[in-house]
Amino acid sequence: MIEAGIVGGTGYTGVELLRILARHPEVHIAAVTSRGDAGRRVDELYPSLRGHVEGRFREPLAENLAGCDVVFFATPNGTAMRMAPALLAAGVRVIDLAADFRLQDAALWQQWYGEPHACPELLAEAVYGLPERNRGCIAAARLIACPGCYPTAVQLGFLPLLEADLVDAGRLIADAKSGTSGAGRRAEIPMLLSETGESFKAYAVSGHRHLPEIRQGLERVAGNPVGLTFVPHLVPMIRGIHATLYAPWKGGEADLQDLFESRYRNEAFVDVLPAGSHPDTRNVRGSNRCQLAVQRPAGGDTVVVLAVIDNLVKGAAGQAVQNMNLMFGLAESAGLESIALYP
Amino acid sequence: MIEAGIVGGTGYTGVELLRILARHPEVHIAAVTSRGDAGRRVDELYPSLRGHVEGRFREPLAENLAGCDVVFFATPNGTAMRMAPALLAAGVRVIDLAADFRLQDAALWQQWYGEPHACPELLAEAVYGLPERNRGCIAAARLIACPGCYPTAVQLGFLPLLEADLVDAGRLIADAKSGTSGAGRRAEIPMLLSETGESFKAYAVSGHRHLPEIRQGLERVAGNPVGLTFVPHLVPMIRGIHATLYAPWKGGEADLQDLFESRYRNEAFVDVLPAGSHPDTRNVRGSNRCQLAVQRPAGGDTVVVLAVIDNLVKGAAGQAVQNMNLMFGLAESAGLESIALYP
Amino acid sequence: MIEAGIVGGTGYTGVELLRILARHPEVHIAAVTSRGDAGRRVDELYPSLRGHVEGRFREPLAENLAGCDVVFFATPNGTAMRMAPALLAAGVRVIDLAADFRLQDAALWQQWYGEPHACPELLAEAVYGLPERNRGCIAAARLIACPGCYPTAVQLGFLPLLEADLVDAGRLIADAKSGTSGAGRRAEIPMLLSETGESFKAYAVSGHRHLPEIRQGLERVAGNPVGLTFVPHLVPMIRGIHATLYAPWKGGEADLQDLFESRYRNEAFVDVLPAGSHPDTRNVRGSNRCQLAVQRPAGGDTVVVLAVIDNLVKGAAGQAVQNMNLMFGLAESAGLESIALYP
Amino acid sequence: MIEAGIVGGTGYTGVELLRILARHPEVHIAAVTSRGDAGRRVDELYPSLRGHVEGRFREPLAENLAGCDVVFFATPNGTAMRMAPALLAAGVRVIDLAADFRLQDAALWQQWYGEPHACPELLAEAVYGLPERNRGCIAAARLIACPGCYPTAVQLGFLPLLEADLVDAGRLIADAKSGTSGAGRRAEIPMLLSETGESFKAYAVSGHRHLPEIRQGLERVAGNPVGLTFVPHLVPMIRGIHATLYAPWKGGEADLQDLFESRYRNEAFVDVLPAGSHPDTRNVRGSNRCQLAVQRPAGGDTVVVLAVIDNLVKGAAGQAVQNMNLMFGLAESAGLESIALYP
Repeated sequence: MIEAGIVGGTGYTGVELLRILARHPEVHIAAVTSRGDAGRRVDELYPSLRGHVEGRFREPLAENLAGCDVVFFATPNGTAMRMAPALLAAGVRVIDLAADFRLQDAALWQQWYGEPHACPELLAEAVYGLPERNRGCIAAARLIACPGCYPTAVQLGFLPLLEADLVDAGRLIADAKSGTSGAGRRAEIPMLLSETGESFKAYAVSGHRHLPEIRQGLERVAGNPVGLTFVPHLVPMIRGIHATLYAPWKGGEADLQDLFESRYRNEAFVDVLPAGSHPDTRNVRGSNRCQLAVQRPAGGDTVVVLAVIDNLVKGAAGQAVQNMNLMFGLAESAGLESIALYP
Repeated sequence: MIEAGIVGGTGYTGVELLRILARHPEVHIAAVTSRGDAGRRVDELYPSLRGHVEGRFREPLAENLAGCDVVFFATPNGTAMRMAPALLAAGVRVIDLAADFRLQDAALWQQWYGEPHACPELLAEAVYGLPERNRGCIAAARLIACPGCYPTAVQLGFLPLLEADLVDAGRLIADAKSGTSGAGRRAEIPMLLSETGESFKAYAVSGHRHLPEIRQGLERVAGNPVGLTFVPHLVPMIRGIHATLYAPWKGGEADLQDLFESRYRNEAFVDVLPAGSHPDTRNVRGSNRCQLAVQRPAGGDTVVVLAVIDNLVKGAAGQAVQNMNLMFGLAESAGLESIALYP
Repeated sequence: MIEAGIVGGTGYTGVELLRILARHPEVHIAAVTSRGDAGRRVDELYPSLRGHVEGRFREPLAENLAGCDVVFFATPNGTAMRMAPALLAAGVRVIDLAADFRLQDAALWQQWYGEPHACPELLAEAVYGLPERNRGCIAAARLIACPGCYPTAVQLGFLPLLEADLVDAGRLIADAKSGTSGAGRRAEIPMLLSETGESFKAYAVSGHRHLPEIRQGLERVAGNPVGLTFVPHLVPMIRGIHATLYAPWKGGEADLQDLFESRYRNEAFVDVLPAGSHPDTRNVRGSNRCQLAVQRPAGGDTVVVLAVIDNLVKGAAGQAVQNMNLMFGLAESAGLESIALYP
Repeated sequence: MIEAGIVGGTGYTGVELLRILARHPEVHIAAVTSRGDAGRRVDELYPSLRGHVEGRFREPLAENLAGCDVVFFATPNGTAMRMAPALLAAGVRVIDLAADFRLQDAALWQQWYGEPHACPELLAEAVYGLPERNRGCIAAARLIACPGCYPTAVQLGFLPLLEADLVDAGRLIADAKSGTSGAGRRAEIPMLLSETGESFKAYAVSGHRHLPEIRQGLERVAGNPVGLTFVPHLVPMIRGIHATLYAPWKGGEADLQDLFESRYRNEAFVDVLPAGSHPDTRNVRGSNRCQLAVQRPAGGDTVVVLAVIDNLVKGAAGQAVQNMNLMFGLAESAGLESIALYP
């Protein structure tokens, strides 16, 4: 059994990791930490876990995590970069679900996250944990930067087009919509049901932290600078991301449906829907799956890709476990086979 | 492997059976029927099942089900009673998720369901599939009447009190609230999001079909006529039932928390929360669990029980599979271990 | 024009007062205060009010309110009782939407609200602002205690039964359900959409602050001690309260429908629905109306009353304005004629 | 008083017209028709209208409407074009909230609506009822084609940019999101709360009927062919449209905030928010207002406009009444001053 530790077990990605790992056939949850709730029973805070996760939250101290084979950071940005070096030195593999190791450029990181990076020397080693793009490197990695939720959906949607060089990478648009769990389990007035229920709005139009991450990922694929307009929106629902992607078609005769199906044929967690489909976030709720559709409306000069994921699963905890499976040589889908909860 | 058939695979209880059985280690889904959608791929109608359930809906004909070990009816009321006799005669075990075999009294059935019962001779043999009450009979049964969703929550809540004769069974009140999936997958204006979203109302105050079913179940326990006022309500959410139960306390010194914990100590799917808890439907969403709390506010003369289930799981498909497990000598929780989807 | 001040203009009852008073033909909003947001434009915080409410939040100082004819307190409990004496002394009429003056017994107040009352000498003078019960006193009052949201719905539902002495007042049950706006505009994790969306639960079963208020109100009607079990629940919606009331029928031949229609015939804001109706909170959303239905299911010994209000209107700001109208000799429905927003 | 008739009073735009007209100071509702519900009391179907709208639905016959000054069609597409000619001939003014007179080209209409137009001779006379563009013509019109909900939001957002020729009209993108009431009050499975609740999806990517309407409107402004990709989405909420608009910036130094504020300075129902704002659909819920924001993220080459309306008010019934006010020389905002219902 793999001994797994979770730092920051009280947020939504943390509790989702617990839900997945508690049923993972090859994992034992060795430690769950929480600064604010240390000492409390895990299942007191999360009654859904009664009978599935025993024990109490502990302090996020190195000694509580040293015996782990792998430690997941489900913490706010800025935590993993302070604790990871010591863990790695102790031979523990680290999977960060936050943003600390997502950007390769420490200056860019500082610009977007507002403080100097605490261990820039690890940025080059960190592997960006998008298995559909980096599977080989992930298997060999000590340190994984799990992609953000929006970046997962947006990159999976654009990848086939950029790899095949079929669209103008200088004029991409990603209009993305997320449920409220993406904002985390934090007491904030704008996330009250009374505020976000029965309402819809965009946010961070002038610049969202996921923008440089997406651009970095797409530029690696395109091999060129990418022009991207990224507008996130808040949907009055709990789970789910829907990315609507627009790209100028360069022309030519490529069959988009074929292209997407071929690209993802061997991917367990990317599912290209039949031509003409409209993926619905409910159909991936609770599952580690991305469902995709692509079309060129009226045969025009704009390609439209629709991509849905559950932001807490393929967009966070599920993808983290998928990375862990690859790192430890397990079946990539171990612990991740559950079916979406519809309706 | 147990060969299972599902009649009526296009409703919410049908698709929930598919979700559970597709991952059940001892079951093979042999046939799924649908009168209206015969010939269509199952995963075309339900994209969440892509890669998990292959094949197409078939006509609900005996020949399509004859090779099954067990057939589940996830049909409207009145279907199972017409098809069950032939299946039973062919040696197939039958689990009805509708109401056809829930009432033992054919006249009462006719009164509430508006037509004569098609096979009253089977009513005596049919076993009411509430494992926490009838486990032994279920294991030996050929024909199971799966309890309704409200009746499951209400009976599990009242059982300990009536078994211990601590309350006046003549003055029980069950104020129950259900998500919209309880109304099924039917095109009806009152169930549109535009109608039920952001709204709350009672319905069927003058008499709901689950009333005689609950009363029958409680009277078996009490050994006496039961007086019950049952008011169901519609909650603007998809899954979940919350039953708030009120019973006049007969007096005495019994410790209610102890009573409930003792009663359900060995039940895998009934979870008595710590004293003072308020169960929340989200904590059982997608799981086969009932969570319960009990208290006597201000030490007064009214006992209040709070019971939550997922109406499609413990209130329908999950409980049906729990019954199947018992009938076939499997572990009672086989295929039913998944953890509630929170948040 | 009546010069009106609002203390605590940033909460949901405050902004609802602004919405109503901004369109009231006889009122000028003279001052809106907010301790936390003083100096900010009102319409910056509430863009729905752009063009309707000018000006900025001010500090809640006596000098900012002294010129008002009436001051509304839309503040947390404990604020009005500290500021009201000086305002009253200055000839300003005071309408408190919080709980400071709702209980006549200062000791009881201290027991439920956790601190000594700051001006117990005013409790006897304060008039409980339920116009359907106290219209005459309200018109003559200097100080109004606006009823709580649950108490409004529960009392309007029980009043006709208790006035006519048709039920056993010792065994009343009020199973009440509220939207999330009842919890106010406060940053609290349990009120996030991610927590309360798609979920339903009871709370405060062991005792809610509205219990003594309701009991006091019902006892004034019944003339006797009242036994009441009150269980509030949280509904995943923003506005609306639904009270389901149960009372033991004393017997006799009274026509309940007639009784309710007669009792409320002349009330502009209480609407008794036709026999057999199920009131729906959406039909009073945004309006100052209570809709009621009553029945005795199966002619049995339990009377069931269903009552719905918008907790922010008839349960708070609308009722406050109704009181103001009475105090100043205006038409009772001035500024309150708007129709519920359906769908 | 203006005598107004409503044909199709049982859909959501019909009941919204009733809500608005019942409180309009210059209008008397003379007749409300419904083919399916003729003979039923209006307030039986819509309890929110009790005490506000008396009378019963009548058959949609010419004789029931002949005495009206104006008739609103809140009917499915294809109804108004059959009844309008006779009404116009009788001197009745007609405002169609459906699509019958929105496209000037009868062939295009037939292509998108699937049947020949019944009165193509009226298309040239019909005035497209977007007051912010066509105020003068509306005042003089006998026949108004009320814009669709999406077209209202999209056109109001793009208008200033196209009028000032600041963007490339050949590459416009409108990513639009609507609440479920836009689909009308029809019994359809995909619109059940159980289906659309807690979910998000695009629809009609290959072509939506509002596309030619928007394109026609924008081309009138641009004076050139317009290239538009239009993707509508369904949001799990009842009311509200959010349009996120993308346009390639032609360059230059124009101040977008100034441009938008100047364009709409004198418009009562278009409200340009301060720079950097993110309009929220809740802030226009129930009001006839469009709130707009514009920016060019990171000073780049894409202009982003955010536009919100209530689809049933500014997107349908409210705009229809605004047109009526203009046609009859009333204050443009008569009956339309109500403030959005927040929260």
